[in-house]
Amino acid sequence: MRHAAASAVVFSGWHRMSYATTGGGLQSVELERHIRRLHRAVGNAAVDDKHLVFATGSTQLFNALVYALSSVGNAVSSPASVVATAPYYAAYKMQADMFDAQEYRWAGTTATWAKNTSRNSTGDFIEFVTSPNNPDTTMQKPVLGGSSVIVDHAYYWPHFSHIPEPADEDVMLFTASKLSGHAGSRFGWALIRDENVARRAAQYIRTSTIGGSRETQLRILKLLKVILSNLHGAEDIFAFGYNVMRSRWHRLNAVVSRSTRISLQKIPPGYCTYLKRIKEPSPAYGWVKCEWEEDHDCSEMLLGAGIISRTGVLNEAGSRYTRVSLLRTEDDFDVLLERVTDLVNAEKEKHGQARSSAT
Amino acid sequence: MRHAAASAVVFSGWHRMSYATTGGGLQSVELERHIRRLHRAVGNAAVDDKHLVFATGSTQLFNALVYALSSVGNAVSSPASVVATAPYYAAYKMQADMFDAQEYRWAGTTATWAKNTSRNSTGDFIEFVTSPNNPDTTMQKPVLGGSSVIVDHAYYWPHFSHIPEPADEDVMLFTASKLSGHAGSRFGWALIRDENVARRAAQYIRTSTIGGSRETQLRILKLLKVILSNLHGAEDIFAFGYNVMRSRWHRLNAVVSRSTRISLQKIPPGYCTYLKRIKEPSPAYGWVKCEWEEDHDCSEMLLGAGIISRTGVLNEAGSRYTRVSLLRTEDDFDVLLERVTDLVNAEKEKHGQARSSAT
Repeated sequence: MRHAAASAVVFSGWHRMSYATTGGGLQSVELERHIRRLHRAVGNAAVDDKHLVFATGSTQLFNALVYALSSVGNAVSSPASVVATAPYYAAYKMQADMFDAQEYRWAGTTATWAKNTSRNSTGDFIEFVTSPNNPDTTMQKPVLGGSSVIVDHAYYWPHFSHIPEPADEDVMLFTASKLSGHAGSRFGWALIRDENVARRAAQYIRTSTIGGSRETQLRILKLLKVILSNLHGAEDIFAFGYNVMRSRWHRLNAVVSRSTRISLQKIPPGYCTYLKRIKEPSPAYGWVKCEWEEDHDCSEMLLGAGIISRTGVLNEAGSRYTRVSLLRTEDDFDVLLERVTDLVNAEKEKHGQARSSAT
Repeated sequence: MRHAAASAVVFSGWHRMSYATTGGGLQSVELERHIRRLHRAVGNAAVDDKHLVFATGSTQLFNALVYALSSVGNAVSSPASVVATAPYYAAYKMQADMFDAQEYRWAGTTATWAKNTSRNSTGDFIEFVTSPNNPDTTMQKPVLGGSSVIVDHAYYWPHFSHIPEPADEDVMLFTASKLSGHAGSRFGWALIRDENVARRAAQYIRTSTIGGSRETQLRILKLLKVILSNLHGAEDIFAFGYNVMRSRWHRLNAVVSRSTRISLQKIPPGYCTYLKRIKEPSPAYGWVKCEWEEDHDCSEMLLGAGIISRTGVLNEAGSRYTRVSLLRTEDDFDVLLERVTDLVNAEKEKHGQARSSAT
């Protein structure tokens, strides 16, 4: 063959770079095996009776699972109601609204429906539960009984949370983004008990994107191998991450505890079956409340102090709350801490001024 | 810091592996630049007045663009009708049916509507046009006037098609899968004239998957650099691919031309502005018609001869037609050719039998 080398590398028949992996599916069998190994080793999810569905980030799975659950259990005449407990991760609502399907619709917060005794006449519920929660990092359980539940365990790893026991819900979500920080790789997975739901979720992924990137699957496989080989060793990613996040939370709290203007969520310590000890809090986010009456838009107030946060408005927590991310480079975190310190130090003077100008 | 090396590599702050690329968006600016360079060098698309939207395969863009076009131009009370000309790529219909949105619905083939004089009362159309077409490889134009049109140019590269001029439709699709064969990388892009449509398509990608894989973007960038540096040289991917595909088509036709049982689509030669000569046909697919009355299911008949094809039923071409892929390894193509040869050689005997058993 005369056209050799470079062209041949790029063009060497479609088959070897095709949609399908070894085994004929869209998912790397080897990666699936390593994900199961990791969950078993960490003890954060029961995997033996679960089907595994890969996606382009756990984000793609939000609608995939709503689709899978609403199609299985629901008649078209009565669309399923997709709900979450406030404050919730706004992307659940954004997807339900954008896809705007006949079979389901965003139906607000669980609080609205928990009080509503006539709710059985409105069709099935699909409840998003995030545990630990985004944005406020609390451990969550479903609020509405008898619903289909999608439990997003993105943050249920030992660097962010203690691990009391393996999670064992029917439908669970995880993501590489919050395991090792590789958000840009776009890799998430679902653990699903029911074969029919798993099959429908996989069919959704196939129809919407014909699976996810092969390069990403190979990269995540490599990462998992490194992570697995270092568990409980000197370079354990979870011990490392826990120490980083605990230290950040400790330093941030030391400053905020001097403030009457802003406060942070309280997180109880808990026994971690992975680290085999009681763990201090090490959350991914600070859920900031503005306590002063005049700071009705907390996010805007912080922005005025040079602190970028995500507003709580979208997830119906009200504008008194906002989310500050602790997932940053060390340099960025130092800048954040500096600005929070300046804000708190300026409190007495500022509040004195506000009070005197109000009188 | 005591936990160094491996953990640090994996966990070194979320920022550097985050969703955003250099510049703050979800798309590699450098990759965008190289895609534009490639289109200019090949002359297959006018890019200067277009916005570029990346996705997880062009597959993700089908619904992204239907969403973008239906939301911009259409009232909810009158859902947009998504249509294509038969035979069409079945994935357009599969997505429209699966997403089942309030704002649009699959409305069948253009033939139904072209005859219907009252069609203006049914709302707007969004017409998928694939050119060269999948499955039958013909050059296509929109059939319905005044509609929104999505032109899928997946196969509009010089290895599969002559390039009479740069395509310049308002909304165009391309994919790495059919450029270099990297289907498993899942990378596609849209060229969009209208800023508002592009913004809505990008918002869809952001909401459904927060962009696509970073690893894939880096890989495709590397591939484009190799392709670009070899254009018109000894290792030109298009000259290489054209020679491979032309040879396969020539060999397949030589066998099928001896058959009364099966026939292939006719493709006229055409002048290619990239290769600067009249090109022989070099299509990605053979669109097989079964000519004998008893072979009413063409795909099944071929399967009986050990030849795997994609049935034409799904895309409303009728079961007399089926698609045979010429995108295979050389070994696989040789096996295909062998089995077609056996089928054709057995014709006289077989047809003789069929005729005599019918009398």
